[in-house]
Amino acid sequence: MKVLEVDLGARSYPIYIGEALLADASLYAKHIVGRQVMVVTNDTVAPIYLDTLLSALSDYSVDSVVLPDGEQYKTLDTLNLIFSALLEKKHNRKTTLIALGGGVIGDMTGFAAACYQRGVNFIQVPTTLLSQVDSSVGGKTGVNHVLGKNMIGAFYQPKAVIIDVNTLLTLPPRELSAGLAEVIKYGLIRDDAFYKWLESHADQLLSLDVDAISYAIETSCLCKASVVAEDETEKDVRAILNLGHTFGHAIETHMGYGNWLHGEAVAAGMVMALDLSCRLGWVAESEIDRLKLLLKQVSLPIAGPASMTADDYLPHMLVDKKNVDGSIRLVLLERVGFAVVTSNYPSKALSQTLQACSSNKR
Amino acid sequence: MKVLEVDLGARSYPIYIGEALLADASLYAKHIVGRQVMVVTNDTVAPIYLDTLLSALSDYSVDSVVLPDGEQYKTLDTLNLIFSALLEKKHNRKTTLIALGGGVIGDMTGFAAACYQRGVNFIQVPTTLLSQVDSSVGGKTGVNHVLGKNMIGAFYQPKAVIIDVNTLLTLPPRELSAGLAEVIKYGLIRDDAFYKWLESHADQLLSLDVDAISYAIETSCLCKASVVAEDETEKDVRAILNLGHTFGHAIETHMGYGNWLHGEAVAAGMVMALDLSCRLGWVAESEIDRLKLLLKQVSLPIAGPASMTADDYLPHMLVDKKNVDGSIRLVLLERVGFAVVTSNYPSKALSQTLQACSSNKR
Repeated sequence: MKVLEVDLGARSYPIYIGEALLADASLYAKHIVGRQVMVVTNDTVAPIYLDTLLSALSDYSVDSVVLPDGEQYKTLDTLNLIFSALLEKKHNRKTTLIALGGGVIGDMTGFAAACYQRGVNFIQVPTTLLSQVDSSVGGKTGVNHVLGKNMIGAFYQPKAVIIDVNTLLTLPPRELSAGLAEVIKYGLIRDDAFYKWLESHADQLLSLDVDAISYAIETSCLCKASVVAEDETEKDVRAILNLGHTFGHAIETHMGYGNWLHGEAVAAGMVMALDLSCRLGWVAESEIDRLKLLLKQVSLPIAGPASMTADDYLPHMLVDKKNVDGSIRLVLLERVGFAVVTSNYPSKALSQTLQACSSNKR
Repeated sequence: MKVLEVDLGARSYPIYIGEALLADASLYAKHIVGRQVMVVTNDTVAPIYLDTLLSALSDYSVDSVVLPDGEQYKTLDTLNLIFSALLEKKHNRKTTLIALGGGVIGDMTGFAAACYQRGVNFIQVPTTLLSQVDSSVGGKTGVNHVLGKNMIGAFYQPKAVIIDVNTLLTLPPRELSAGLAEVIKYGLIRDDAFYKWLESHADQLLSLDVDAISYAIETSCLCKASVVAEDETEKDVRAILNLGHTFGHAIETHMGYGNWLHGEAVAAGMVMALDLSCRLGWVAESEIDRLKLLLKQVSLPIAGPASMTADDYLPHMLVDKKNVDGSIRLVLLERVGFAVVTSNYPSKALSQTLQACSSNKR
C-alpha cells in the first residue's frame, strides 16, 4: 500500500493506494471520529461493493443511501436525498459520510458533507479511475445546474481517500479509457517524463497491470496535489488542471450529460487545446499527432462529436467559471509538460481550432 | 455612523450602523471588487427599498432577483432561483451578491454566495431588527429542510454589513418586538448591565428612538462578535447564542414555519431556559418574573403556544444540531449575564419545565 499526503495545512489528508483496501477496517477506523456513518453510493456500485464496505464498518452505526447512477442526477434534488437520509436517521454533527463510487458520487457526497449542519466529515472511496486520479485530490465538490456544470458547490476536503485499485476490475472499458484521459492530462500540463512513460505503457494500463495502474494513479495524484497545494481555491495556477475542460464542458453540455463521458470530452478538448497552442506557435504540429496516437491507443476520441459545429461551442464556453469579464480563459501548452492559463490569443485562432477539430471524425 | 469590526483574521469585516446608509453609494463601493452585482430581496422589501439601493449602485452592472417573502420559502428550491438568476445573467466569480431584507434573505443569499461557483463575495443589508442584531454577525448561512430548520448551510462571512436603522420605520411592530427578543438574549447570556439598560429603555426602543435603537444594535452586534470571534464554527462557546432557541425551534417547527415569528418563539424559549435554570437552583425564581415583565413590556410571549403540549417539544428538540449522541444539549443560565451549554440536567426537570411553560397562556 502507498500512502500520499495532500499538504493543505490543517486540512491535510492521506491518500491510500493499494489492493483490497475496500475491506480494510483499520483504515476507516483511523478517520472516523463519531459512532455514525452514512455511506453514499449509487445503484451501479452498490450491488458490487456496498456489502464489502458495510462489513468493514461493522463497529459503527451505519446507514446507507443509494442514488441513481449518472451525471444527469448530479443535482440539488439528488443532493436533497442525502440530506433526507441523514435527517431521517438522525445523524448528528459528528457523523462521517463515505462516498463509494465515481466522481459524481464523490462530488455530491463531499458537497453534502460541506453543507449538512454546516459541515461534517467525509471519506472518499473512489471506484473509477477518473475519480481516483481527479476528484480524490483538490476538494472540489458540488452539483450541476441546468444552466451550467459544477456551478454550485464548495471547496471542502475529505479526511482521507481510500483507493482500492481492485475496484477497477469491474469498471467498464469505456470508463477506464475515460479515466486515462485525465492521467494523460497530468503528463501534458506538468510532467513530460510521465507523458513519455504513458506512451510506452498504454497496453499495461488498459489490461490493468497492478504495478502500472498504481504508478499512474500515484503519479497523477502527486501532480494534482502539488498544484492544489500551491493554490487551493483556484485563484491562479490551479486552473491548469482544466486543460481540455473548457472545450470538454461545451461538448458534455451540448450533447446532454452522460452521452459523452467526461474523460472522452476532455480527450477531444485536449486535442483542441494543443491545436490552438500550435496555431500560436507554441508547440509543433507533430505534438498534435503524438497526442492523437496516444489517445487512440487507449480508445479515446481525438475530435469533438460529428454532430457539433464550431458555433455550438462558444455559448457554452462563455459561461465557464474561469472567465472574467466576458473573455474566454483557456489552458494552453507552452510546451508538452508546461501549461498556462490565458485569454491572450486571437479569437480567430480559436475559431480555426473549433472548425478544424469539430469537423474531424471521432 | 458607527463602524464595528468583526475580527475573524482574513475573514474580518466591518458593520456600519447609522441613518440613511441604504443610499450611501460610497459604502458599497468600498466592498465591491468586480463590475457585477446581484441584489437578492423579497416581494415585501423590494417595493419599499429596492429602487433606493439600485440608485446607489448605478456605477455597476446590477441585476436583481425578488423572492417570495417568508420562512416557508427558505428552501433549496428557492435557493435555486438565485442560482438561475446568476447563471441567466452570466455572473462570474467576481460578482457580488447583496442581501436586502431580513434573516431569511440574508441566510439564503449568504449560502448562495458560499456555493455559487464555489464562493463569491456578498454584502448584507439587513432591514429587520432581528437580522441586524443576529444574522449580520456570525457567518451562519443556509436553508431549512422539511425535516429540520437550518440543517443545510455553510459558515460564510460577508464582506460588509450595512445597517440602515431607518429601515426599521417600515417594520411591522410585531417584527420589531421579535427582534427585541434577540437583543434581550444578549443581555441574559453575557451582559447584565445591558439587560438592566433594556429594562429601563423598553419604551424608547419600541418607539424607535434613533439613539436607543442604535445603541441596542451596536451592543448586540458587539456581544455576538466577541462570542463568534472566540469560536467561529461553533465547536464550543458559540452555542450560548442559542439561548431559548432549542425550545424556540420546537415551537417554530411544530406550529409551521411563519406562524410564530422566530423572535417570539425564542422569547418563550428563554422563559423555559430560565425556568429550567431555576429548577436546577442556578437562578432565583424572581428572575423568571423579571424576564416575563420585560418581555411583556415589548409585547413578546412569555409561554409556548396553548395548542402545544409538553410532549410536542421533545421530538423536535432531539434533532437539534447541538446534540451529540442522543442527549439534548441546552443553553441555561448560571446567572443573569452568564450562560452555559450543558446536557447535564435531570430529564425530569426538563419535563417539569415543558409542563409548566407550555400550559401558560401567551
